Amino acid sequence: MLPFLRAGARRSISGLGNHIGHAARRSSVGGQLQFRSGSSEAVASAVPIPEKPQRVTLSDIQERRSRAGRLVAPTAAPSDADMFKGPTAGKPKAKRWDHHLTHESTLRAPCKLKQAARHLKQPGIISLGGGLPCPEYFPISSLSLHVPVPPGFSEPDTLSGGETVAIGKYDASVPRAAGQPPAAEYDLCIALNYGQATGSAQLTRFVTEHVELALGAPPYADWGVCLTPGSTAALEQTLRMLCDGPGRRDTLLTEEFAFSTALETAAPLGVGVAGVPMDEQGLLPGEMDRILAEWRPEERGGGRRPHVLYTVPSGQNPTGATQGARRRREVYEVARKWDVLIVEDEPYYYLQMGPPGERKKEQEGSQGLEGFLDGLLPSYLSMDVDGRVVRMDSFSKVVVPGSRLGWITASAQLIERFVRHAEVANQGPSGFSQVILHKLLDERWGHEGYLRWLMHLSDEYTKRRDVIVAACSEFLPKEVVSWNPPLAGMFHWLKVRHETHPDAASKSILEIEEEIFNRCIAKGVLVARGSWFRAQQDKPPSGLYFRTTFAAATPENMREAIRRLGEAIRESFRL
Amino acid sequence: MLPFLRAGARRSISGLGNHIGHAARRSSVGGQLQFRSGSSEAVASAVPIPEKPQRVTLSDIQERRSRAGRLVAPTAAPSDADMFKGPTAGKPKAKRWDHHLTHESTLRAPCKLKQAARHLKQPGIISLGGGLPCPEYFPISSLSLHVPVPPGFSEPDTLSGGETVAIGKYDASVPRAAGQPPAAEYDLCIALNYGQATGSAQLTRFVTEHVELALGAPPYADWGVCLTPGSTAALEQTLRMLCDGPGRRDTLLTEEFAFSTALETAAPLGVGVAGVPMDEQGLLPGEMDRILAEWRPEERGGGRRPHVLYTVPSGQNPTGATQGARRRREVYEVARKWDVLIVEDEPYYYLQMGPPGERKKEQEGSQGLEGFLDGLLPSYLSMDVDGRVVRMDSFSKVVVPGSRLGWITASAQLIERFVRHAEVANQGPSGFSQVILHKLLDERWGHEGYLRWLMHLSDEYTKRRDVIVAACSEFLPKEVVSWNPPLAGMFHWLKVRHETHPDAASKSILEIEEEIFNRCIAKGVLVARGSWFRAQQDKPPSGLYFRTTFAAATPENMREAIRRLGEAIRESFRL
Repeated sequence: MLPFLRAGARRSISGLGNHIGHAARRSSVGGQLQFRSGSSEAVASAVPIPEKPQRVTLSDIQERRSRAGRLVAPTAAPSDADMFKGPTAGKPKAKRWDHHLTHESTLRAPCKLKQAARHLKQPGIISLGGGLPCPEYFPISSLSLHVPVPPGFSEPDTLSGGETVAIGKYDASVPRAAGQPPAAEYDLCIALNYGQATGSAQLTRFVTEHVELALGAPPYADWGVCLTPGSTAALEQTLRMLCDGPGRRDTLLTEEFAFSTALETAAPLGVGVAGVPMDEQGLLPGEMDRILAEWRPEERGGGRRPHVLYTVPSGQNPTGATQGARRRREVYEVARKWDVLIVEDEPYYYLQMGPPGERKKEQEGSQGLEGFLDGLLPSYLSMDVDGRVVRMDSFSKVVVPGSRLGWITASAQLIERFVRHAEVANQGPSGFSQVILHKLLDERWGHEGYLRWLMHLSDEYTKRRDVIVAACSEFLPKEVVSWNPPLAGMFHWLKVRHETHPDAASKSILEIEEEIFNRCIAKGVLVARGSWFRAQQDKPPSGLYFRTTFAAATPENMREAIRRLGEAIRESFRL
Repeated sequence: MLPFLRAGARRSISGLGNHIGHAARRSSVGGQLQFRSGSSEAVASAVPIPEKPQRVTLSDIQERRSRAGRLVAPTAAPSDADMFKGPTAGKPKAKRWDHHLTHESTLRAPCKLKQAARHLKQPGIISLGGGLPCPEYFPISSLSLHVPVPPGFSEPDTLSGGETVAIGKYDASVPRAAGQPPAAEYDLCIALNYGQATGSAQLTRFVTEHVELALGAPPYADWGVCLTPGSTAALEQTLRMLCDGPGRRDTLLTEEFAFSTALETAAPLGVGVAGVPMDEQGLLPGEMDRILAEWRPEERGGGRRPHVLYTVPSGQNPTGATQGARRRREVYEVARKWDVLIVEDEPYYYLQMGPPGERKKEQEGSQGLEGFLDGLLPSYLSMDVDGRVVRMDSFSKVVVPGSRLGWITASAQLIERFVRHAEVANQGPSGFSQVILHKLLDERWGHEGYLRWLMHLSDEYTKRRDVIVAACSEFLPKEVVSWNPPLAGMFHWLKVRHETHPDAASKSILEIEEEIFNRCIAKGVLVARGSWFRAQQDKPPSGLYFRTTFAAATPENMREAIRRLGEAIRESFRL
């Protein structure tokens, strides 16, 4: 059992009852809620949650950069978000999470060789310390990339479109001309050598500023970032940091249907999973509260009450559900009540979209950028007065998956433990990925260009979403298939009324699912079976679902694929 | 306790006694050996170890490729070494290692979404399955790199040197002209999307062939490879696959001085370390045998006898020691005797060099390449009749560290378990790194060019080694400092006779080490303290050492740094 009592609580959790009750009323799943308001073992802390994200502006960032001057960060230079953040005066510090750390994470010591690198700051010192290869032997003297440019971002496959951006080996150390500064702040000499496990200072600056610009800085002072080799790596590291396996037998809270790779990450660690029932807005805070309130270690093989929630708030994988702003606050309050840390996995965050047929007004006209940002649902980070959120961002869905590059944002304590692991787990992301993304996002596009790119992508995926939803209306038998048009992401989730299937009496849900899946394959369409995503494979399935994606196929192929799917379902249901 | 008995053993282990005895006589550390020859619990298997590596030739590879034709491996195409290996008829299969796998590794199930990808082979299928972003939205339409070319490899910083290699987005799918095949086998469209955790087919082919060309295929049939995001990641994954922590309390065998990051990887997993005494050729097989023979779980908190050896055979980090061919066979035999798996970490393998002042004859003249390969010490892979070796290779030291790219070679069983972990730990290396290295190594240089690059690098590091060794002769007080010139790698290890230090009676070895280290910093030279690398920090240090590297500093700076080090030591010793 964890210590839930906190001193200084002034606000009763009972004030939350209505919110959570409201959420529960919308639930398509939950029954009577067991909301334990005012329980003596669980109290919310005193700091109020900000009403809306506190974002900085592009001109704030510009001013900050010009004050700071040229960034000088040579090979393996240590860096952290504090070097690049805006002022944090007046904000509280994050709570300490020692009681949440695993045995493994607690045992991690700093990397001795990386520690020694601090001596390199001494002027004139010659290093015979670290085994860093000589850049003279890097067999690439320059890289260049051809990229699309704002505002149109047309695919520059012809020579007429786009621009070429060059990266030299010594751009950051060789002066442009006598008495001039070097041409760039980052180059191949730095990017292609060993670096810090946090990633480079150059890209750390970019993502730190981006967090403040697009999400709003967290409402506590000591937050930080760490670049990762993608959110797959970040999630495994985070679970190893927070969830103990055999012995303490931790259980992770997730949506009842969850990203299958996340489930496959937890299982071999000996970490159990408790799936929280969902509605069209994703996980239900009342249900989460109920699971936590009703937790009895003795009924769970001695496993302690879950203390970590893994959630995909926007365009959830696989259901496509997006948590509204109020839903997020309610979930956060439940997390505070039960001392739960929130792992917020947001690969699709910027692919938010209005309902079909309704062009998002904020994306039109000259005030587009401001409107785009104002229209984004708040990140858990922006309401995180305690520092209990680990947010995972990734460039995979919005730049390229092959970059294997993302970052986490969390409290300094958790970032430090995460970095200790990264030092031995991967040493940070690829230098090629880092320098290419720096050149594209920071140097060529800048923050504004990148935000416009995200708007552009969100528009493009909105069009794709509209195609698949229209195709479903046209081709799927509505008497047995239903859906909510997704408001973010890449996934469209279809519910099939298995109970009306002609073989419902003799076949299980999984058997019907398999039969339809096989018919789909025979007809030439691959969809994902809903059962692959069930958080608790030991429980009987609650329904029959298929996940489709509107990310990749051409509009014509998407229509054709949905037509085939409709045929497969009709045949199975003998319609 | 593990089952050591194997059926069909015909050869007594006692035939090894002389070898191991010989090794022990050279030991600078060991006392009386307890070599338990003929013990009933430990017998070597029947298959004889090949006398020398069975390498294929460049023309074998050329012929194989032309027979196979153009490699067609689109986005996320599965691949393995079997698609690219030479014939294995007549070779035995690797032994099974189920009893070596950790609980965690045993629990790993295949990734459901990646499994579903097999349906994509069906002609005409439309995928609404995986959430792969549309390459139309990859904001990079081409990349190009300027690279040095064989045979000179002069650094192409001026426009006159080197060549430019271009990578387009659709090079592998768009025909060069009507009726023609596409221009390339790999492109940005494939490399920058999600791929398999094994890495791409294109680079898998290259490393598979490279293993056969340069190391010789292992003498068992079912070996495989898996690309990794560098050997740091590979080691952590391998330890989690083979060494159980709390509960079974495994102990890892290493050299008594070992790569500190490797030690820092093992410690938080709850895996203990047993350091094997070394001589100038690295770990002593007789000592390894003694540790295993004398192992008493009841004296080790219940921990079972070590069943995994982690070793850096060439240019060991930190000691610079290189195991000779005979030493490697002896270590392998001890590993067979006690059913120990060998994790062979070989980042410096191709940086082998002759003794100072003796130009390696094989690198001169027209027969250079053949001679270079013949001169390489055998990899444990090449003698691995059981399939008990996991070899880790890396492009970090021989191309660029920032690629975060390497590969492991091991038995199919171990590769399969490793891949299951990679699917949730990182999803394989960066696509930028993969496509850039493919273009450079495979397309532009080809295998021959890459081997010539390795020869070139080995020559360059030999010159650097000669500089540091000469500087040590010139500037270090020989009455208290001694060394063996390294025969591979990047490190030069200095032994200091602490017992002659004027404060030896009142100060510990660690105190003297610290005092000299601090004097070095004050004089402007950073070296690595030997104690950072002690495998067993709980044991008293056996001597006073410093690790220096000849990898990075200019020759002038190296001389100056060694001069400062000499001054620091003289002052400390009041010489």
